Amino acid sequence: MKQIVILGSTGSIGTNTLDIVAKFPEEFRIVGLTAATKDEKLEEQLRMFKPQIVALADHAAAARLRARCKDLPVEILSGLEGVAQVARLPEAALVISAIVGGAGLVPTLAAIRARKQVALANKEPMVMAGHLMQEEARRHGVRIFPVDSEHSAIFQSMEGHRREDIRRLILTASGGPLWELSREQMRDVKPAQALQHPNWKMGSKITIDSATLMNKGLEIIEARWLFDIPPSQIEVLVHRESIIHSLVEYKDGSVIAQLGLPDMRTPISYAMQYPARVPLDTPPLDLASIGTLTFYQPDHERFPCLGLGYQALRTGGTSPAVLNAANEIAVAAYLQEGIGFLDIADVIRTTTEAHTASEVSTVEDALEADRWAREKAEELVHALAR
Amino acid sequence: MKQIVILGSTGSIGTNTLDIVAKFPEEFRIVGLTAATKDEKLEEQLRMFKPQIVALADHAAAARLRARCKDLPVEILSGLEGVAQVARLPEAALVISAIVGGAGLVPTLAAIRARKQVALANKEPMVMAGHLMQEEARRHGVRIFPVDSEHSAIFQSMEGHRREDIRRLILTASGGPLWELSREQMRDVKPAQALQHPNWKMGSKITIDSATLMNKGLEIIEARWLFDIPPSQIEVLVHRESIIHSLVEYKDGSVIAQLGLPDMRTPISYAMQYPARVPLDTPPLDLASIGTLTFYQPDHERFPCLGLGYQALRTGGTSPAVLNAANEIAVAAYLQEGIGFLDIADVIRTTTEAHTASEVSTVEDALEADRWAREKAEELVHALAR
Repeated sequence: MKQIVILGSTGSIGTNTLDIVAKFPEEFRIVGLTAATKDEKLEEQLRMFKPQIVALADHAAAARLRARCKDLPVEILSGLEGVAQVARLPEAALVISAIVGGAGLVPTLAAIRARKQVALANKEPMVMAGHLMQEEARRHGVRIFPVDSEHSAIFQSMEGHRREDIRRLILTASGGPLWELSREQMRDVKPAQALQHPNWKMGSKITIDSATLMNKGLEIIEARWLFDIPPSQIEVLVHRESIIHSLVEYKDGSVIAQLGLPDMRTPISYAMQYPARVPLDTPPLDLASIGTLTFYQPDHERFPCLGLGYQALRTGGTSPAVLNAANEIAVAAYLQEGIGFLDIADVIRTTTEAHTASEVSTVEDALEADRWAREKAEELVHALAR
Repeated sequence: MKQIVILGSTGSIGTNTLDIVAKFPEEFRIVGLTAATKDEKLEEQLRMFKPQIVALADHAAAARLRARCKDLPVEILSGLEGVAQVARLPEAALVISAIVGGAGLVPTLAAIRARKQVALANKEPMVMAGHLMQEEARRHGVRIFPVDSEHSAIFQSMEGHRREDIRRLILTASGGPLWELSREQMRDVKPAQALQHPNWKMGSKITIDSATLMNKGLEIIEARWLFDIPPSQIEVLVHRESIIHSLVEYKDGSVIAQLGLPDMRTPISYAMQYPARVPLDTPPLDLASIGTLTFYQPDHERFPCLGLGYQALRTGGTSPAVLNAANEIAVAAYLQEGIGFLDIADVIRTTTEAHTASEVSTVEDALEADRWAREKAEELVHALAR
């Protein structure tokens, strides 16, 4: 019986994880949950899974939850320190890091420093402070299991093969909901359209990242640190059907890939029970019915965010943290219809160009760059929205 | 430095193996070679690779070779016992079993009993006496590494993952040169057309097997014994481009596959140097240039040989040996234009239907069934050719 904490339990990865726990009660037990603001959803979860401790980052939401859950033997913490405390819970063996965005950095590091096994769905800690995360994981003897479908695919395609034989990692990208559009057509795309992902049902932030291909820009940075592979050996391939989740090419020309119907429960449960697999009720992959898999080179002209990702990775230091923060602000502004779709990349580019990269030796260095970039990007967004 | 014997060095797998040895002289050394009849080609090889011993199954060919190689310090054996003696060579660590057809059974078993690591390119030993081969390998602590591209793909897709988590093996089939033809059109197909394989350059016997899909019928039998997986968990998928060489589906819905440009040097070198890989000069797999991968259900109506394979596997005992022998006779007759393309399946079906399966407890049981089937199939061929 593995005791589990979920950071970000009310999001898409969090609820999928709880589905798996509910299905395999002999294998997993929830001991702690955290969320940002959704106290009602968290209440449902804690009444069902009975963790001993929960935290809400938002103090007011935590106060509401406390008022409603007086009947339950659960400790309810609040604020970022409350979330970090749940991440360090002594009873937990595995922490699912599924907070959306940069807010996941501090609690994920707290879990690593408390020597928890970490299942990482939250890209941003690796993007903002990848080198530091890698160092801390090494120092504390912690293995980080990727949950992102692409990184889980890479991980599964590396298992049983020698790292030193790797020629390149190939991350697949669906191309997102706007793949067929010209740059001119993208200009007027409303959020409702950009949120129609062809293959995956995900949160809105990550779905917009998928529409801009910034998702892949962040993923190459994550892959660089998760797998300790230099940027020049990480490539992106557009694969519309999202059946091949990613591939690893070895020096004898052999390519190992992981495939499957798009279902986040597969990579989540693999990270939870590695190296064993739990029997999910997934339908068999019927490639004859699917019929055709298609592949394209990514188009950097129409999707400049991918190139911005590579550039930030090559520049290094605080650059990826700045890229990520500018993207979060720009996407939020786009979702609120404060800026246009093409403005997203412009806000990110202008922010990163205004930044002078420096080393990330501590979390504070990454957080400081994050704050600076948010402020800068907010300025740009306001100027555009005017 | 790994010391290697190649059984069947003048065929397609044999010459590819020698290419690899020539390229990595620090890693591999040839200590023994065998061939059936091609004494001139074997002479070239022994002058280049300087093995201490060679054998030709054909006595007259061996006599010719001896006459021409008096200047060389090489022992030249002949006959089946000569070939088996090379297979047992004490200096060899690895035996590449690449004889075409049922003639490979006895020398491959000899290598296993001499506790050699075996790289198996020759399907027939597993088809004719799979259970026995598996038992002998277990008893002698010998690991058999598959060289067939499909089985190498399965093997590579199982490495690092738990056997007990496997849901099914999916062997891919190119569909061969006649995939687009109706049964009516197949009737008059001449060998020259059936030998035009779209993706692989192989020997003529295996290319015809690919055109009838008997190749896949034999491969499911081979897979059953190589991987100890029941027939109900082995499936065939037609994949025209031969880029995905085969797949393994696990119980969490995850599918691991091995891909690559069609190049036999990849699976051969993997079997030679497992778990390490040698750096081959293969071009990177450029899926964006390939563009599209297509998949179909196998068509049992037009390609009855696949169903005959499943049937022989389910019947068990001597049935697969009979299937294989009838196929060898029928294909040889077709290549000599003694019978038509559609007659191949008919000869095999009539032969297997006339056979009463019995257990294979010894090699002799398999060889006896093989002899019986050859005779029966020859009769049928003569009747048709008249």
